[in-house]
Amino acid sequence: MTNRDDVLDTLRGLGYGDDDANTLADHFLDAEARGKRGHGLTRVEWLTTLDDLRPDARPERVLAEPGFERWDGRGALGYLTLAAICHAQLEDPPAHARVIVAAHCFPTGVLGYWVRKLADGGLVAALTATSPPRLAHPDGGEPLAGTNPLAIAIPSSDGKPIVADVSMGAVTYGDVLAGAAANDELVPFGGEQAHKAFALAVGLQLLVDSLLGAEAVARDADHRGRAGSAGAAVFNYGAVMLVARPEADPVPALRARAGGARLPGDR
Amino acid sequence: MTNRDDVLDTLRGLGYGDDDANTLADHFLDAEARGKRGHGLTRVEWLTTLDDLRPDARPERVLAEPGFERWDGRGALGYLTLAAICHAQLEDPPAHARVIVAAHCFPTGVLGYWVRKLADGGLVAALTATSPPRLAHPDGGEPLAGTNPLAIAIPSSDGKPIVADVSMGAVTYGDVLAGAAANDELVPFGGEQAHKAFALAVGLQLLVDSLLGAEAVARDADHRGRAGSAGAAVFNYGAVMLVARPEADPVPALRARAGGARLPGDR
Repeated sequence: MTNRDDVLDTLRGLGYGDDDANTLADHFLDAEARGKRGHGLTRVEWLTTLDDLRPDARPERVLAEPGFERWDGRGALGYLTLAAICHAQLEDPPAHARVIVAAHCFPTGVLGYWVRKLADGGLVAALTATSPPRLAHPDGGEPLAGTNPLAIAIPSSDGKPIVADVSMGAVTYGDVLAGAAANDELVPFGGEQAHKAFALAVGLQLLVDSLLGAEAVARDADHRGRAGSAGAAVFNYGAVMLVARPEADPVPALRARAGGARLPGDR
Repeated sequence: MTNRDDVLDTLRGLGYGDDDANTLADHFLDAEARGKRGHGLTRVEWLTTLDDLRPDARPERVLAEPGFERWDGRGALGYLTLAAICHAQLEDPPAHARVIVAAHCFPTGVLGYWVRKLADGGLVAALTATSPPRLAHPDGGEPLAGTNPLAIAIPSSDGKPIVADVSMGAVTYGDVLAGAAANDELVPFGGEQAHKAFALAVGLQLLVDSLLGAEAVARDADHRGRAGSAGAAVFNYGAVMLVARPEADPVPALRARAGGARLPGDR
């Protein structure tokens, strides 16, 4: 599966309509092109292994206020829920800022991909999302936190947004699945200062869980055993996004100071 | 200077009224008690060395909407600006969530201290703030980003909120000032994966800068030379906060799964 047509054929074969198939293909092919293979074409094959795909499901915006929206994936893949959220923000940007909470939003793929879409449309965005617990406390014990990435994108008048997208894991779960990393390498990043990445993973997870609603708290050991599946319908993994209208254009000045150094999100 | 009365005397001697002196003393003494000495009593002495203190200055809320507020320090110490913002949120919590942007808000001290106040009052909060560039790109070059911490606090029905408070520096600038660390140790944390902490520092900085307004972009090498001073009146360092009403109480379940392990913000 190496070209777009093959990817689209596979997704249509799973029951996705043209719009959703294109949305999913765009994400997987971009992840592949950026070297994030754990979120790339391997995921197309992974989708074919799931027995609970619901290609007919549609994410829903269940609450909309000027500064706050609540969404629910309603059984759709998290990719499609985030795509719908991004589309809605670009159609109706906030006057200043807006917080968006998305329940049943899993898997979410490359978070930087979604915030980059918003930055390409002129909006500042920060996004985090929860995933099955894989990171243990640096002192040991059972996994307590997902790799819970934080992605931040800032538009730039030079056309090249900055996109920071940091997972709190030293390796990705995709690397482990692909055999490129051992399971015991899936620890908070930071070496001697792994407690810092662990703290961020815990903080971001609880931020999402506390805003999702009570059912998120039910995520426990029994559930985690099945968390390799799409999961959106079973476990309440979710996402929290901040989207804002920029008041300034700080990226070109930072690029100038950085000389030619590669900045977050550059290819 | 080891007791509260001495601290208050010093602050009153600098011109601060009782309310502000107590607000400042509370922060410095809490920082000291938690072992964050770079933000503790040494800062009381540091304040006495500044020639641009303005004890009469009052932070101002310049825009207030249900989901968004804009504040300006108006020459007050960042500590007092954050204290005023926290007080305002507890007095009038958001229906769902609110984003707060604070300009001229420096120095901000221990960010975890401020979000803990909100969690103690039942609100979820995340806070970041910018500071003078001290972190270079992991490949070298001039400092491009502040240590720009991210603090997240989640209230808990067990009375013990989780407070993650992570600086992106491997050591603090306070450690360097105190001689406890060498200047060349002030790099993004993470060792071989320092690019991750650098990306977070850059992303958080640009998030704040893009929302502060155009004058923030003027932060350049000339300004940085003087950034050891209080700076609030000269440089536009700022803060961005998300405050939200929780829909769930995820902390007790996490504590149960963690056994007796120390979680972020525990003493």
